[in-house]
Amino acid sequence: MTNDEMKAYLQSIVAKTPFAAFLGAEVISISPGHVELAIPVIPEKMNQHHGFVHGAVIGFVADSACAWAAGSVAGDVVTAEYKLNLLAPAIGDRIIGIGSVIKASSRTVVTKAEIYSERAGERRLVAFAVATVAKTDAK
Amino acid sequence: MTNDEMKAYLQSIVAKTPFAAFLGAEVISISPGHVELAIPVIPEKMNQHHGFVHGAVIGFVADSACAWAAGSVAGDVVTAEYKLNLLAPAIGDRIIGIGSVIKASSRTVVTKAEIYSERAGERRLVAFAVATVAKTDAK
Amino acid sequence: MTNDEMKAYLQSIVAKTPFAAFLGAEVISISPGHVELAIPVIPEKMNQHHGFVHGAVIGFVADSACAWAAGSVAGDVVTAEYKLNLLAPAIGDRIIGIGSVIKASSRTVVTKAEIYSERAGERRLVAFAVATVAKTDAK
Amino acid sequence: MTNDEMKAYLQSIVAKTPFAAFLGAEVISISPGHVELAIPVIPEKMNQHHGFVHGAVIGFVADSACAWAAGSVAGDVVTAEYKLNLLAPAIGDRIIGIGSVIKASSRTVVTKAEIYSERAGERRLVAFAVATVAKTDAK
Repeated sequence: MTNDEMKAYLQSIVAKTPFAAFLGAEVISISPGHVELAIPVIPEKMNQHHGFVHGAVIGFVADSACAWAAGSVAGDVVTAEYKLNLLAPAIGDRIIGIGSVIKASSRTVVTKAEIYSERAGERRLVAFAVATVAKTDAK
Repeated sequence: MTNDEMKAYLQSIVAKTPFAAFLGAEVISISPGHVELAIPVIPEKMNQHHGFVHGAVIGFVADSACAWAAGSVAGDVVTAEYKLNLLAPAIGDRIIGIGSVIKASSRTVVTKAEIYSERAGERRLVAFAVATVAKTDAK
Repeated sequence: MTNDEMKAYLQSIVAKTPFAAFLGAEVISISPGHVELAIPVIPEKMNQHHGFVHGAVIGFVADSACAWAAGSVAGDVVTAEYKLNLLAPAIGDRIIGIGSVIKASSRTVVTKAEIYSERAGERRLVAFAVATVAKTDAK
Repeated sequence: MTNDEMKAYLQSIVAKTPFAAFLGAEVISISPGHVELAIPVIPEKMNQHHGFVHGAVIGFVADSACAWAAGSVAGDVVTAEYKLNLLAPAIGDRIIGIGSVIKASSRTVVTKAEIYSERAGERRLVAFAVATVAKTDAK
């Protein structure tokens, strides 16, 4: 698959995933070992009671960035575990997730993700994640 | 606050939290150091492409169970970090989160959560989480 | 294997593991899905500069409790990842690790461990760990 | 403090920390937000029964790299929690830990570490860690 085919395929999966579609997830770019995605911030849909984007939305972006980065080198995958550090309140226009592969083994792929809030084009690091992602055929 | 007052207060926070309200989060019980919550499974809203409840929904239940258990002993809190192990695909009528306090310190509360899928009243462990939750006034 | 045979076998592995032997690791009990181990606190060997038992010693007990609990149901294993929350400074006569299985799957076992410091027979929770342990033949 | 003073100070702490001294920990370089350390591999001291460097030794390097990177910007610190992914068996002459700051907040510093085994000057990534480190005066 070329990167463009990989992007189109992943975006078609997102379209069939109600939760991802509800959040408006968009694949910005994908290449082997690397993915960037974004969701638009719609406060009345996704904020929590302190006025920031809900941690579960950050969790979605983190998990997706980690799983999709793994998928870019390993095909169909499922997240086995992840750790998420929430570093700063997320406020802005978009939430960006950048996932990359740390190490691909025969049955699992360990990945990390940086999550940013973006406001007027400026990005601020709001979370950091590490995940162990399992190949589906190897589970 | 009595446990009933705590439950009513928490449910009022949920009602004001769009993301939690969207998922239909319900507080089943809360007492100091312990909380149980549920969300109904609505497949066309929250499944992923393998047909299971999306990991981000499990993440929401895990994070909420951990944060609310911490809140039950520490007041207003914010999750600093959590680790989530996804143990089995979640299928069923409801997702249940049971959070409890491992250790409360002056500035943080460490909590854990078991997450179950429930089908016809029978529960199956689908995830396990550990979180560090910070007191808001101490952040 | 009976529990006694499992204990003798594990203690023989410890004897051949320089690092575990150096720390004086002792298997207190083991049964399928459950293990308890102890190390004696020797301050001039294992304390850090604040006067508490070094985090890496706690890490050893946590990792061992998690891996050995997994091994009690899965045979030869290797830790894939763990998360350790250090809850309180460890002071006392012994460090105790109690490991148990959360979920055993075909290729991995997810386990947890509570780590206590013991002083004059009284135990205090000092750390909590969760680990993903891989079966060696399945890696 | 200059970087050289910071390095000398940290090496003096190591000398007073029996566990770190036992493992032969050496500070290679330190600057604000960044640290590199090494320990020589002495198989008869630190291997486990598969013939690789024991996970607890990797844990020591990971924890030290994370805590020292935090200390380089925050002074006296204590590790609150860390997650360690063991990526490959560690074999070689030295274990290298490279720690860096992800985000420093008022009371905690989130850091990460890459851990390498080194053989004849060639490095191989064997582990990855993320830690939350608390400032001591803020605990």
